[in-house]
Amino acid sequence: MAVYTHVPAEEMAEFLKRYDTGHLVSAKGIAEGVENSNYLVETQREDGTSERFILTLYEKRVDEADLPFFMDFLDHLHARGCKVPRFISDLEGRKLQQLSGRPACLIEFLSGISVTEPTPAQSEAAGRALGELHMAAQGFTQVRRNALDKAGWHDLADKCGDHLDDIAPGLSQRIEAELSFLDANWPADPPSGVIHADLFPDNVLMNGDEVTGLIDFYFSCTDITAYDLAITHGAWCFSSDGATYHADRGTAMIRGYEAAHGMSDAEHAAFPILCRGAALRFLLTRAYDWIYTPADALVTRKDPLAYLRRLDFYASASPQDLLGA
Amino acid sequence: MAVYTHVPAEEMAEFLKRYDTGHLVSAKGIAEGVENSNYLVETQREDGTSERFILTLYEKRVDEADLPFFMDFLDHLHARGCKVPRFISDLEGRKLQQLSGRPACLIEFLSGISVTEPTPAQSEAAGRALGELHMAAQGFTQVRRNALDKAGWHDLADKCGDHLDDIAPGLSQRIEAELSFLDANWPADPPSGVIHADLFPDNVLMNGDEVTGLIDFYFSCTDITAYDLAITHGAWCFSSDGATYHADRGTAMIRGYEAAHGMSDAEHAAFPILCRGAALRFLLTRAYDWIYTPADALVTRKDPLAYLRRLDFYASASPQDLLGA
Repeated sequence: MAVYTHVPAEEMAEFLKRYDTGHLVSAKGIAEGVENSNYLVETQREDGTSERFILTLYEKRVDEADLPFFMDFLDHLHARGCKVPRFISDLEGRKLQQLSGRPACLIEFLSGISVTEPTPAQSEAAGRALGELHMAAQGFTQVRRNALDKAGWHDLADKCGDHLDDIAPGLSQRIEAELSFLDANWPADPPSGVIHADLFPDNVLMNGDEVTGLIDFYFSCTDITAYDLAITHGAWCFSSDGATYHADRGTAMIRGYEAAHGMSDAEHAAFPILCRGAALRFLLTRAYDWIYTPADALVTRKDPLAYLRRLDFYASASPQDLLGA
Repeated sequence: MAVYTHVPAEEMAEFLKRYDTGHLVSAKGIAEGVENSNYLVETQREDGTSERFILTLYEKRVDEADLPFFMDFLDHLHARGCKVPRFISDLEGRKLQQLSGRPACLIEFLSGISVTEPTPAQSEAAGRALGELHMAAQGFTQVRRNALDKAGWHDLADKCGDHLDDIAPGLSQRIEAELSFLDANWPADPPSGVIHADLFPDNVLMNGDEVTGLIDFYFSCTDITAYDLAITHGAWCFSSDGATYHADRGTAMIRGYEAAHGMSDAEHAAFPILCRGAALRFLLTRAYDWIYTPADALVTRKDPLAYLRRLDFYASASPQDLLGA
C-alpha cells in the first residue's frame, strides 16, 4: 500500500519507449494493491491523444514465475467480455519487463471507484460480475494451485501456534476445532475453476451501481467456484469489524451471482461451510501477519478478530439464512 | 509521502457534489508532496467530458490559517501567466473545505513529470520559470513570514544542540561558526518578495525541456528573491549526496533566471552567501528531522550531510565560480 521502489522519471520515460504508447507526460506513485509498487502513468502521442496505464513493479509478495498465468488469465477473461485490465505488450511482444531491478509490467488503466459501504445494488452487481468471471473462466485450461487452500490453513495454524492465544484467549483451540470440522465437512469434488480469490470491494471498480473493472488478480488460482463467492460474501456483506451482517447485501450478491452463473443444490447446501472456510482463511492470514509483522512496518496490520466474528456468524447460519427465502 | 487519511470513495463522491465538476469516476491516493494526503481524482460531466484534480487533505505540517495566503498567491501568479495549479472554488465560492475531519482543498491537476537528473536545458528552464514567478509576484501585497529564516536557523541549531555531533563529529561547532559568518555577512536590505522557497525538481513538472507546472507552494513566504534562486540552485545543481557540483546546470539555471528577471551587481556579489544560507537551512531541517524522527516512521529521513557537502562547496566558491564567465 505504498511505493516501495522509486523509479526516476527519466528511467520511466525511457522504459515506455519500448511500447507503442507515445511519450510519458505524467507519473504518480499510487498507494494501492498488494505489496507492489504502482504508478499511474499518462502518455501522449504525436496527435495529442493521451492514454493512461498502471505501471507495476513486483516486490517480494508476487512470484515472477506466476505472472504469465495472471497475464493469460486476464487475456482470456477480456476476450470473453469481462472488464479486467490487460497486460500491455511492448513493440517486441513482451509483457514481462525489468525496471529498477524489479519485474515490471504495463497494465491497462480502468476508471471507477471502490466503494467502502456497498449498497445492495452494488453487492448484486459485484455478485453478477463474479458469476460472469466464473462463466468466462470456463475453458481456461491453465492451473495454479491455491497456496491458501485447506492444507495451507493447517500450515498457517501450525506456524501461528500458541501465539494465537495472545490475540484472543482460546483462539488456537477454536481454530483447531474449526479445521477439524472443515476437514470432515468440506464438499467433495465441487465445481472448480480459476477464481479471483480476493474480490474485496477494493478490487472492484464501480461507477454508481455498475462494475467498471475487476482488478488485482494476484491471488487468482484454481479452486472451488462457490468458495470464491464465499470469499466475496465475507468481504462485502459485513461491517468492517465483522460484528454486523448486512443480509440485504448478502441476498443481493447471491441473486446477482445466480443470475450470471447459477448455483446447484449441492452448492447451496455447501455454501455456509465454504463461507466458514473463507472466514478462517482471512482469520489465519491476518493472525499470521499480526504475529509476524512488526507493529512499526509500512503495512497496516488488519484485525484478525474481524474475521473470527464472521466465522461465528457463518458457523450459526443455515443455507436459508444466507441464500434468502 | 503517503496517504495519511483514508477518505471513503462515497464520502469523496459526496464532497465533489459541492463543485461544478461532474461526478467522481476515479480516485487514487498518491504518494506525493509534503506531509499531506493527496488523491488524484477524475470527474465526468453529463456530456462525457472528464477533468482531473488533486484533492489535498492537510495534515499537521500545513497550518490551515496559512491556506488563504497560498490560494491568493497562486491566483495572483496564475492571472499573470505562471503555470501554477489554482485552488478550485465550490458552487458557493469556497475554496477551503473540511473532509474526513481535515482541512481539504480541490486543486487543479497539471501534467508533467519531475526529473531526477536535470539536464542544463532543464535547469535553465527551471531558472527561467523561477524568474518569471518572481516577476509575477511583484504587486502581490500579502506577507507571510519565513519561519525558516536566519532567526529560525539559530532556533533549529539550538534545538539540535549536541545531537548534531552524533550526525558528524564537530558538526555543532561548524554550524555555530557558519551562523556567525552569515550574521556578519548576510546582505542588508536586498530585493525581497514572495518566493517559492522549496523549488526542488520534485516541485517542477516538465515535458521534455519545458516547464508545465510549478507546484507545492506550502513553504512560500516573504523573503529575499535571490535566496529563492540559491535554494533552487542547491536543489538542482548537485548530485543528490552533494558531493558533485554540476557547473553546467548551475550556469544554465542562472542564465535562465537572469533572462526572465535579471540580477543586480549586489545580488551577484551576495549570491555565494545566499547559497551558504540555503545549504545551511536544509542541513538544519534535515538534521532536526534526523535527530527527532523515529527511524521507523513513515517519512524517509534525508541525509543532512548531503547539505553539509553543498555548504562546503559554496563556502569555497566565488561569485564567478557560480555565475560563470
